[in-house]
Amino acid sequence: MIGLDLGGTKIAASLVGADGTVLTRHTRPTPAGEGAEKVLDALAEAARAADPQDVAAAVGVAAAGVIDPVRGVVTSATDALPGWAGTRLADGLSSRLGSPVACDNDVRAAAYPELLAAGPDASLLYAAVGTGIGGAVAADGRMLHGAGGLAGHLGHLASPEAEGLPCTCGSTGHLEAVASGPAITALYRRRSGRTATRLEEVAGRAADGDRQARDAIVTGARATGRILGGLANTLAPHRVVVGGGVPRIGRLYQDALADAFTAELMAPLHGLLPTAPLSGPDAAVLGAVHLVRILPLHHPGAHQ
Amino acid sequence: MIGLDLGGTKIAASLVGADGTVLTRHTRPTPAGEGAEKVLDALAEAARAADPQDVAAAVGVAAAGVIDPVRGVVTSATDALPGWAGTRLADGLSSRLGSPVACDNDVRAAAYPELLAAGPDASLLYAAVGTGIGGAVAADGRMLHGAGGLAGHLGHLASPEAEGLPCTCGSTGHLEAVASGPAITALYRRRSGRTATRLEEVAGRAADGDRQARDAIVTGARATGRILGGLANTLAPHRVVVGGGVPRIGRLYQDALADAFTAELMAPLHGLLPTAPLSGPDAAVLGAVHLVRILPLHHPGAHQ
Repeated sequence: MIGLDLGGTKIAASLVGADGTVLTRHTRPTPAGEGAEKVLDALAEAARAADPQDVAAAVGVAAAGVIDPVRGVVTSATDALPGWAGTRLADGLSSRLGSPVACDNDVRAAAYPELLAAGPDASLLYAAVGTGIGGAVAADGRMLHGAGGLAGHLGHLASPEAEGLPCTCGSTGHLEAVASGPAITALYRRRSGRTATRLEEVAGRAADGDRQARDAIVTGARATGRILGGLANTLAPHRVVVGGGVPRIGRLYQDALADAFTAELMAPLHGLLPTAPLSGPDAAVLGAVHLVRILPLHHPGAHQ
Repeated sequence: MIGLDLGGTKIAASLVGADGTVLTRHTRPTPAGEGAEKVLDALAEAARAADPQDVAAAVGVAAAGVIDPVRGVVTSATDALPGWAGTRLADGLSSRLGSPVACDNDVRAAAYPELLAAGPDASLLYAAVGTGIGGAVAADGRMLHGAGGLAGHLGHLASPEAEGLPCTCGSTGHLEAVASGPAITALYRRRSGRTATRLEEVAGRAADGDRQARDAIVTGARATGRILGGLANTLAPHRVVVGGGVPRIGRLYQDALADAFTAELMAPLHGLLPTAPLSGPDAAVLGAVHLVRILPLHHPGAHQ
């Protein structure tokens, strides 16, 4: 099977054997500014490059944006992929390749292996903290999709730490406004009056003892930990995973998040702790391949 | 079938026909202070009183406390029912009655009819705002139970309006600490310096133009609306229901909740609005009967 991972800047494609072995690896830039048809063309070319002998029986796509896997359509998308919203992803790709296609958003695709790891009928809370805050929720062994495939947004809950801050979604006071990578960096700039463009700079200064840098990182981590702890009270997950680039800045962040998470939990959940993702460098394409086994397949010519 | 509704003060029991007609109605006090065995005895007596000719094939129980419907056990409970936590509810009742028993918590039982009303494969967010804040979450047509049957607690997320307030769960800053009926009443007492023991008093004073009474009600409603809006962003429900006694105090509360809910929503969810429950006076026993159709049945003598 072929796994495709579509991001705002890069497409990754792999041919994956039935036993989960990654047989080929191909990447190419995402023609993000050229419109949805060109993005679909590039996905098809990436699939052919990963499987030049056309041996794959089906294609799984983990894509940026809000994806409705039942209809195979992009429900909405950010400015990172202009024109992507409304694209008939599954039909567009299956007609180009002549193969059946299953698709879902990239965060849910990455979360499927975590759900399997949590055991049969498990519930999972998965957060991806990076440029934005994405997520996936699974309950009683099944990934939740919700209306229009929208379920899993963890960044758009009211956060006490974010009161009054404008959010990317147009509302104010949401977690993403204080706890994404850019939000933590902006918080540092406001508190310190110093310049900083990347979270790694803030993390470096925190390591050098900069008080405002430490405070900004702890505030973002604490806000995320509190929201995840509250959601754990609501969803009672067996496993809580925090992935994405932000947690990789180090222990200061991870410890503050875990402490805030723990302090929120109701007594029967005591002992539950957020963990890092299992996944290695091929996680995205392996998650994409997994979609073929569990989601509706869209066949070529089925929806003209 | 027999539907039983167990609350902290009262047990309601009805014999319900196959077409959903309520054939009998029986209530008796809950012997809350006498321990779990006496509560089970009272449930069995209520079932016999509702079905004196023993025609029912099975019994559904909607019970206070955190219920694990798969194991048929009370995972945890509040001080309203001392000794209730740990009770083998399903086995204890099926052995007393000689009938198969299905059980779940009372809020989820009340939410099942709402889920059916939302349509096939729908997602539902159901809040019960009263002495505490309970809830139920269903996704893609299935009620979520989570680890230990704990899923559905909507009152224990961090609320910006509740910062610093102690919560019944032992944590601080949770929604329930500012938005339950007693919490709104306490907020009014703190802000006004006046006495008030019941929410209805506060609502009456608000209607008479008492500014602090209005503010306390709006604060609780707004806090609840914000949390429900954030959870809607996470779960993408097709239907959001707000039940319990607090919303019945009137339009001031309901409008403030709806406005705050709407302001939180991401663009693809615009148009979603919280609604009142469908259910009439028999909702609890009808929800209890519904449990028999969808949950594991616990048979007499199966688990000695």
